[in-house]
Amino acid sequence: MTVITVLGAGAMGSALCTPVADAGWEVRLWGTWLDDHLLDAVERGEPHPRTKEPLAQGVHLYRSDQLEEALAGANVVVMSVASVGVPKVTELALAGIAKADALWMTSKGFCEAPDGTVEQLPVAIRRIAQENGYNELPPIVAIAGPVKANECAGRKPTATIFGCLDGAVSKKYAQAAATSNYAIEHTDDEVGVEICAPMKNVYAIALGIADGLEEATGVPHHNLKAATFTQAVKEMSLLGQSQGAKPQTAFGLPGVGDLEVTGLSGRNKVYGVRLGRGENPAQALAEMDRLEQTVEGVPAAGLAIKFVHQHAADIADELPLLNAVVKILNEETTEPVKDVVAQAVLPRA
Amino acid sequence: MTVITVLGAGAMGSALCTPVADAGWEVRLWGTWLDDHLLDAVERGEPHPRTKEPLAQGVHLYRSDQLEEALAGANVVVMSVASVGVPKVTELALAGIAKADALWMTSKGFCEAPDGTVEQLPVAIRRIAQENGYNELPPIVAIAGPVKANECAGRKPTATIFGCLDGAVSKKYAQAAATSNYAIEHTDDEVGVEICAPMKNVYAIALGIADGLEEATGVPHHNLKAATFTQAVKEMSLLGQSQGAKPQTAFGLPGVGDLEVTGLSGRNKVYGVRLGRGENPAQALAEMDRLEQTVEGVPAAGLAIKFVHQHAADIADELPLLNAVVKILNEETTEPVKDVVAQAVLPRA
Repeated sequence: MTVITVLGAGAMGSALCTPVADAGWEVRLWGTWLDDHLLDAVERGEPHPRTKEPLAQGVHLYRSDQLEEALAGANVVVMSVASVGVPKVTELALAGIAKADALWMTSKGFCEAPDGTVEQLPVAIRRIAQENGYNELPPIVAIAGPVKANECAGRKPTATIFGCLDGAVSKKYAQAAATSNYAIEHTDDEVGVEICAPMKNVYAIALGIADGLEEATGVPHHNLKAATFTQAVKEMSLLGQSQGAKPQTAFGLPGVGDLEVTGLSGRNKVYGVRLGRGENPAQALAEMDRLEQTVEGVPAAGLAIKFVHQHAADIADELPLLNAVVKILNEETTEPVKDVVAQAVLPRA
Repeated sequence: MTVITVLGAGAMGSALCTPVADAGWEVRLWGTWLDDHLLDAVERGEPHPRTKEPLAQGVHLYRSDQLEEALAGANVVVMSVASVGVPKVTELALAGIAKADALWMTSKGFCEAPDGTVEQLPVAIRRIAQENGYNELPPIVAIAGPVKANECAGRKPTATIFGCLDGAVSKKYAQAAATSNYAIEHTDDEVGVEICAPMKNVYAIALGIADGLEEATGVPHHNLKAATFTQAVKEMSLLGQSQGAKPQTAFGLPGVGDLEVTGLSGRNKVYGVRLGRGENPAQALAEMDRLEQTVEGVPAAGLAIKFVHQHAADIADELPLLNAVVKILNEETTEPVKDVVAQAVLPRA
């Protein structure tokens, strides 16, 4: 039986347990030092506090001090911690990861190396492995696509995509882990999948702005929202291509699909709504922090623009929407947010 | 000064008057025999009944019996009637259209020729012209993209696309008609633009189904909606390519953008919501008819599947979502709509 160890017992990690358990795998869920209260609730028989769904039956739970046991003999290890935790958890788990057949990743984001280089997460993981004497890592499978964790955990129809530089590997796991309500596309475009994952959080802020303008004015700004959506997809494709990704990856589940689901709900969108209503970016962020609502798109925007200047400076001007969001977040403009977004997404003939 | 005559005084025709008037053109709006009450309201100084916005200042109004005057000396003629009215209005206006420099088209749909062939609207217009002894028509500019008429009329930020087989023509008009809140992309991919226009209405029904499932169950089906969105875009691109369109057209404003705006509101989506809630397709349609809410996506679905069988039979199996919508509308299945849609949009690894 395939043994899979999920690192990180938050929403996405615990949700992923459902399809792999349904697929008949032996599933282990390891919680970080931040996850004890989540595992406590599950052990009390309650729904998982983040997904509000029961954890899949038969999943073995491991506490933060049981990492070695959790990883022993694992065929697949899944990195499912928040992107800021990836370097630390990678270091802790390297011995187990190196022995596995594959490292899956639902963590999404960019990572800033100690020298200031902004990296895609798989690049960061490979670098950290090398720095710790592991020159060979198993293939990394990037998981993305329009997956709200609670719906995945609740067995609602869900489509996702596995991306691995070795296309045979992503195909193998896509076939092995699919269930009747968790369908998996596969691709060898790890880079394209990993570019879309954090960028869609940035662009979801812009979609929220259009919704906020509607709240502020009482008049829908659907045309602006749709133009914003289209421009966001275009920019994800362009940025991906600049890093060697296939153009079409952004036009599929990781780009179009994930942006659609992220724009339907979620904290990045909600933050954008506040900006569209006219709230101050810093104050709105502080208020959401106070409500314990992390807005991943805000740090992602800062890292993304750094990433662009470091790795794709020649196309920086072709990403007007990313530039507009950064300008708004950094309060580098006194123009109304509506005008800043509109100028970025309305094409010039 | 450029003289533009808009044929059809409904929502989109009257809305288009705003940007072209703002661009400084002389604008004439001709109402069909069905539009008298709309022009009556405008003449009384009321907002246009469909857009709830005032008609742009300076627009000259023409009644159905004043077609010749409306067309005299027009540089641009715009076909803005409902797709079912296109053949008739084309015949009536051919003399004026033939003398113009271009025929623009905001009408969207497929057209069934007397011999049963399902055609894209520009193809139908060229055929009707030939049958009436006009072997030369001016270039046709297909207009599509995410434009809700009321927002366009109200000068909300709007992005659209002009598609003409002669790319220089679409470029010329895109530059000449753009305003600060009505931005225009241009392409030579008339076919791609015209494929997306009716298809997005069909696929909006499927998006509505996901929303209806949420209403029926109290549980969001956002993952399903996003997977549906992604599959719809893919099918528009595939169907377009089968007719010679560029793949990327569906990934831009006419496909991704227009589907986004259509999925945010509108009658096709509302009809889909009813289906998702479990209403019977025929009864739900009858109820919407009674409320005078035309659901364009329903006849479009029937024509689209005919079009596919006539012109793209080899890819019929690659359009599972179109097939699923048709199956649901025709009550050819007793499976729950959720399962029918999910089977169509969840990829098989």
